[in-house]
Amino acid sequence: MKIALLQTGKTTERHVSEGVGIYTERLKKYCDFGIITIPDLKDTRKMPPREQKEREGKKILDATGKDDLLVLLDKRGRELTTVEFAQWLGKRMQESRKRLLFAIGGPWGFSDEVYAAAAFRISLSKMTFPHQLVRLLFTEQLYRAFTIIRGEPYHHE
Amino acid sequence: MKIALLQTGKTTERHVSEGVGIYTERLKKYCDFGIITIPDLKDTRKMPPREQKEREGKKILDATGKDDLLVLLDKRGRELTTVEFAQWLGKRMQESRKRLLFAIGGPWGFSDEVYAAAAFRISLSKMTFPHQLVRLLFTEQLYRAFTIIRGEPYHHE
Repeated sequence: MKIALLQTGKTTERHVSEGVGIYTERLKKYCDFGIITIPDLKDTRKMPPREQKEREGKKILDATGKDDLLVLLDKRGRELTTVEFAQWLGKRMQESRKRLLFAIGGPWGFSDEVYAAAAFRISLSKMTFPHQLVRLLFTEQLYRAFTIIRGEPYHHE
Repeated sequence: MKIALLQTGKTTERHVSEGVGIYTERLKKYCDFGIITIPDLKDTRKMPPREQKEREGKKILDATGKDDLLVLLDKRGRELTTVEFAQWLGKRMQESRKRLLFAIGGPWGFSDEVYAAAAFRISLSKMTFPHQLVRLLFTEQLYRAFTIIRGEPYHHE
């Protein structure tokens, strides 16, 4: 199965890129996983949040292919436990040949157009974490979900 | 205000210790923050989870002073948004001179004795993350909460 993480801006925090690297490597066993990085917007200092979201949203939609199933990682999304996320992932693997494209928004969230185009919204936590750190949380959780699907002894309930 | 994080076993994941180091450094501006590490249990391979939790629980309670307010970071706890966590922290700062002691349990959670001794239980997410990674999530969230309390421009709603 093809899975991609769509992120805005390169990972500049070394501790995050190291952690993401560890889980990306482990994910190779379970799926064809890749990270797509959309360049950061420039000159955002005086740009209103709404305009930032819209410009970024356009880039997200440009990067989304018509055979992609767009899933937003968004604090306004549905909260799942790890086991529920694994079940959700298992269903997507069975029902669709589309690539799963998980998108992490910028600090202001997603534009209305992106919300409209998304098939699912998942929240990793009620709390807000730095968007770079969310990359690490997501890759770990994706790895954890695959170990549950395969019945491997990584996750304890 | 004195705040400590009580953790089981040293942080062996370099990316986690680097990230925790970044936020620990930033926290110096806002509080007297420290990390207390309880040694890992030995020979746990054949030890039943219940016994692991009880032995670990005893160590947690030994490390908890009578002037500490014990707060468990536990997926069975109450989920708060970042702003709610900041409000909760603000209240603790006003009402008490006790040290706030946040404890992260091992992979099997906490013993009944630890639950009984705790004043609060807070959940960082419905999802389960590695207990080392929880250290990073917590220190970032504590830093984020202080920036909200101080009205500093780090967190966006």
